[in-house]
Amino acid sequence: MKMKFIAWILGILWLSVSAQAETGADLWLRYQRLPSELSASYSQTIRSVQFAGSDATMAAAKDEFLAAFEGLTGKAVQQVRRPAAATLLVGTTSEKVIADLGLEDELSRAGEEGYVLRTMDVKGGSMTVVAANSSAGALYGTFALLRRMQSGQSLENLAVVESPKYDLRLLNHWDNLDGTVERGYAGHSIFWNRTEEFSELEDFYRQYARANASIGINGTAINNVNANPDVLTAEYIQQFAQLADIFRPYNIRIYMSVNFASPAVIGGLENSDPLNPDVEAWWENKVAEIYRAIPDFGGFLVKANSEGQPGPMDYGRTHQDGANMLARVLQAHEGIVMWRAFVYEPGDDDRARQAYNEFMPFDGKFEDNVIVQVKNGPIDFQPREPFSPLFGAMQKTPVMLEFQITQEYLGFSDHLAYLSTMWKEVLDADTWAKGPGSTVARTTDGTLFPQTLTAIAGVANIGRDTTWTGHHLIQSNWYAFGRLAWDHQLSSEDIADEWIKMTLSHNPAFVGPLTDMMMRSREAVVDYMTPLGLHHLMGWSHHYGPEPWTDIEGARPDWLPRYYHKASAYGIGFDRSETGSNAVEQYFSPVKELYNSPETCPENLLLWFHHLPWDYRLKSGQTLWNSIVYRYYAGVEEARHFQREWDRLEGFIDDQRFADIQFKFKVQTREAIWWRDACLLYFQTYSKRPIPAELERPVHDLDELKETKFEMLHHN
Amino acid sequence: MKMKFIAWILGILWLSVSAQAETGADLWLRYQRLPSELSASYSQTIRSVQFAGSDATMAAAKDEFLAAFEGLTGKAVQQVRRPAAATLLVGTTSEKVIADLGLEDELSRAGEEGYVLRTMDVKGGSMTVVAANSSAGALYGTFALLRRMQSGQSLENLAVVESPKYDLRLLNHWDNLDGTVERGYAGHSIFWNRTEEFSELEDFYRQYARANASIGINGTAINNVNANPDVLTAEYIQQFAQLADIFRPYNIRIYMSVNFASPAVIGGLENSDPLNPDVEAWWENKVAEIYRAIPDFGGFLVKANSEGQPGPMDYGRTHQDGANMLARVLQAHEGIVMWRAFVYEPGDDDRARQAYNEFMPFDGKFEDNVIVQVKNGPIDFQPREPFSPLFGAMQKTPVMLEFQITQEYLGFSDHLAYLSTMWKEVLDADTWAKGPGSTVARTTDGTLFPQTLTAIAGVANIGRDTTWTGHHLIQSNWYAFGRLAWDHQLSSEDIADEWIKMTLSHNPAFVGPLTDMMMRSREAVVDYMTPLGLHHLMGWSHHYGPEPWTDIEGARPDWLPRYYHKASAYGIGFDRSETGSNAVEQYFSPVKELYNSPETCPENLLLWFHHLPWDYRLKSGQTLWNSIVYRYYAGVEEARHFQREWDRLEGFIDDQRFADIQFKFKVQTREAIWWRDACLLYFQTYSKRPIPAELERPVHDLDELKETKFEMLHHN
Repeated sequence: MKMKFIAWILGILWLSVSAQAETGADLWLRYQRLPSELSASYSQTIRSVQFAGSDATMAAAKDEFLAAFEGLTGKAVQQVRRPAAATLLVGTTSEKVIADLGLEDELSRAGEEGYVLRTMDVKGGSMTVVAANSSAGALYGTFALLRRMQSGQSLENLAVVESPKYDLRLLNHWDNLDGTVERGYAGHSIFWNRTEEFSELEDFYRQYARANASIGINGTAINNVNANPDVLTAEYIQQFAQLADIFRPYNIRIYMSVNFASPAVIGGLENSDPLNPDVEAWWENKVAEIYRAIPDFGGFLVKANSEGQPGPMDYGRTHQDGANMLARVLQAHEGIVMWRAFVYEPGDDDRARQAYNEFMPFDGKFEDNVIVQVKNGPIDFQPREPFSPLFGAMQKTPVMLEFQITQEYLGFSDHLAYLSTMWKEVLDADTWAKGPGSTVARTTDGTLFPQTLTAIAGVANIGRDTTWTGHHLIQSNWYAFGRLAWDHQLSSEDIADEWIKMTLSHNPAFVGPLTDMMMRSREAVVDYMTPLGLHHLMGWSHHYGPEPWTDIEGARPDWLPRYYHKASAYGIGFDRSETGSNAVEQYFSPVKELYNSPETCPENLLLWFHHLPWDYRLKSGQTLWNSIVYRYYAGVEEARHFQREWDRLEGFIDDQRFADIQFKFKVQTREAIWWRDACLLYFQTYSKRPIPAELERPVHDLDELKETKFEMLHHN
Repeated sequence: MKMKFIAWILGILWLSVSAQAETGADLWLRYQRLPSELSASYSQTIRSVQFAGSDATMAAAKDEFLAAFEGLTGKAVQQVRRPAAATLLVGTTSEKVIADLGLEDELSRAGEEGYVLRTMDVKGGSMTVVAANSSAGALYGTFALLRRMQSGQSLENLAVVESPKYDLRLLNHWDNLDGTVERGYAGHSIFWNRTEEFSELEDFYRQYARANASIGINGTAINNVNANPDVLTAEYIQQFAQLADIFRPYNIRIYMSVNFASPAVIGGLENSDPLNPDVEAWWENKVAEIYRAIPDFGGFLVKANSEGQPGPMDYGRTHQDGANMLARVLQAHEGIVMWRAFVYEPGDDDRARQAYNEFMPFDGKFEDNVIVQVKNGPIDFQPREPFSPLFGAMQKTPVMLEFQITQEYLGFSDHLAYLSTMWKEVLDADTWAKGPGSTVARTTDGTLFPQTLTAIAGVANIGRDTTWTGHHLIQSNWYAFGRLAWDHQLSSEDIADEWIKMTLSHNPAFVGPLTDMMMRSREAVVDYMTPLGLHHLMGWSHHYGPEPWTDIEGARPDWLPRYYHKASAYGIGFDRSETGSNAVEQYFSPVKELYNSPETCPENLLLWFHHLPWDYRLKSGQTLWNSIVYRYYAGVEEARHFQREWDRLEGFIDDQRFADIQFKFKVQTREAIWWRDACLLYFQTYSKRPIPAELERPVHDLDELKETKFEMLHHN
């Protein structure tokens, strides 16, 4: 064959690969052919496999591996019944072939759900071992091995012991039974009010379970915390059970959000008072009914006496009364109660103080199977908040972190905001509850306080959109949440790096720039939306776009931006220092003192804790007004940078996903400009100070920007 | 009085001046108090005035001066009956006091409408003299003296002789009788279908006349060239007469656009054939009727056999037949015919060639009182065109220039495009008709060819908007047109400088930057709309915004952008060289040869004359595609620069006009971006080449930009 012809053939092949459009539906489980040097290496290390054990989870692990290996290397792998040189051996200690490996020490460190990855000698060479104490551990170990292959890491000389930092690693779906998703920006609910028969969607749900298992998610609450009581009817329990059956092999338990008023609403009881024996009896029966259908049902997630939801206080009872009644009912079945601490009422006290004030009196008074679920910040998933003071303060009650994967306040599914950096900022924040090193992570993972339960939850960004998340690149947030729930010490860069390689491309000329963009992306959103500790400036109700001016007649004042920014001719910001709401007192020293003074308060939280004059000088020497302006402008320049950088990456991935993402960056840039200009022109009506003369000028008047409507710009 | 109190008082005074809002209605005739050093100097030079002569024009000159002087200096000036030291003496040679001054030489150079400005000795000192051969000249001289004061020039040692370069200096109003203005962007017609009684508007019309007289305009055609035959009915003739009476003291004659089919349409004749004796008789009667009402009526402006208008060719006659018939009828009254050469028909021949082809056969065959009115470029008032080849080619027929003051193709009244630079580019363009130095100006002003008539016309940008022109800063185009019609050798900088000082501020920190912006403004518009010789890319019908893609079923192909840009996978541009339409052959050597080769063709006309491949290298070494991109981007950066620079000028002028203009720059910037992105993304569908990676990216897709509608963005 002539060289020219070979080149022509290769050209055709290359084109056919390059032109093959991808929809994003495969997430990070694409298992496309690896670069040849990698697939050659892996094919040499693994020439045969033995999956020891035969339960449904082991079967799932084996099926995943066989399909993945063939996809990644182009070669089917041989199954054997005993390990030899270049065998991959996967199994649990209940299998002799594993129990005899002498890995007791490692396996004891791996714990219930962990795994050991080892390269071990075997006759005629070496073999690769995935050993675990449970088939769940073997499944996670299998995915870990695949992740290594997908991200081009070496399989030589493996000596890894992994165990998850949190026992329960949950997604929360805010999916309504009518199929809408509260704060969902990726289409219809994947669970409710489907047009298809369940049987048509089994593969789809299996894909959901595989994706979650691949990152260690082991539980999912599949209906909205603003819960419809109907979810407890036989019809819905049956639907939960169908899904649980699909998820079970993937070690995923199902949880239910319940409405505290269910006994009265669907049970026909006179009330739902937790101290009413009839109420408890009703719950006992209902829970028994659930466990008959779902023997490994996880438990209840409860939003009570919060934002209009019913709760025990409706009957003069307490959070303690309510949570403990449900906990007692669930104890018999080893179920748990996740009781949310997201509570606040309009009134004299600063909203940021209220959860702490309301929950601290109950510390140590909950049943053992209650865990208090606390949002990362004291307000509500803002682009940047300080950590909630409940972390570290509740020392006698298990507390779990709730993160929001769906970008309610960070541009919906239109903006790239890689949230791992935000979550790491929270996890690594030092509460000083037990002196230095008392990070939020350690206040929740059982290493600082004795906890019977450790857990973490993320509010999912998942819907029926082909991309699952409405934006290819923010699939990374689902991925990163799972990875951090498994190990909060992973770095955001490493997570981004492996996700990019699994999902998009191995080419370093692509991975490097995109990692850099992802790492900068959340700070960019903070800058163009709410820099320097500003918060809650977004549009009324839909929470999209800037509306710092919003004033809805009769609205709860604590749902309006003015409550938070307090801009005036004097200055801007919320005084939460001792001279103000004194929210700082809820933190331990020296955090309290650091936050209390504008001199020591981190500048990125300055206006969260302080109301300062427009000419206040920051450490840079800039006035507060100019600093605000420069930050908003910096945010827009970052958005433009992302857009420009992405355009440079054309050709590295398939055209369809490239174009989809390219369009998202266009939207992000124009909305960044919208945020910047709307906020600055509005605040300027108070500051009466100019935008520094060297900066690009807004091209709309404030009045025009006030007319810009959610509906006009939003693309879902 | 304590210093502090004085400072306080001064502060109040300053504030009250600064805060005094101006509407722009006073144009450049504001006569606001001058800086004190100037008013002191002028008050010393002129302590008394004598206006010798008493006709209506002299009276108008005197009234103007007295009011202006008091406004500018804060002091009323004394009127005297004989000149003394520090007298201003104004008059014509028919007055003995002027005739005796010994200014015969100067006055002979000043001619019919010119004037002499002289500082002359008089008993006890010196006096200032404005002398002229006609009261019109005295009026112009008076305005010239005021302009010197308004723009802060010295009144010492004056020795000026001025005479206009063109005999007839006309505005053309494209005002329809229903009150709409074709291509008007400043509101309702000032002339037609008014809601007010005529008497209520007399001061307003006097203001129009004063403004025109102040810049030397001496004629106005007040109805659209797409003429309604009704204009020749007694009712409208009466309305023309009322206006003529107001304008007459200001030396402004009135002209009428006529519909060539009028004899048939309103006269009841069988046809309007110019060789039909009944038709000529009908016109004779009609013209006599007009002259009875308006003894100094100027004549007719005719758009015939052009864009669907009727004309002599409808009866198998020629432009010559039609124009000469009307000319004969008008000769008895010393009226003239301005016959427009803006003719083209869809067909095989390049539109740019057609006016030349159609009119050259008649050169030398028109009556003496016919002048052929030719648009500056061969297509239609585009942001940049080469000059029409008729200039210099028609040597035996008077040819007059038609400029467009209203910005049909340069952003309506939303964009700053100071057009003096464009007009100067045309006036100074060398046709080589009689060797080097045969500028377009000289082919029309009588210095190159013997012409019985010289004239120039500008299509007005005037409407009932308070600002007159819809944008304060483009009042300068009305002003500049008049100044250049008087003296095409004035520089655009000098015109801008005097207009800014008269209209906005004397402060050098304001005048300098604004002059710079104005001087750069038209090129900026060219860059973001139609760089490198591109043309006619604008929206269908309304001519607003970019629509290079427009394809209207059944539309005349020569009204569609594709006819002009001819973008394809190969390249872009209209080949008008010898290998193409050969439009270049209509130019004299060496212009013809320069245009014919892409190597020598000016780059700013490159794609006007050539169709070139996307990778064609320009002199810079850049490819054609990249050059187009960089020019569009440069245009947007200029718009942003204007916006930023204007913001720096806050406080120099009244708040109202500042804010009005500030808003216009916002609109201009966003529309510049719209033009850039729409054109580039559209052309990119052919070029398949990237926008260079370092450049800001478009934030909309082409499909979105195609949906952007005139109505959504236009603000009049």
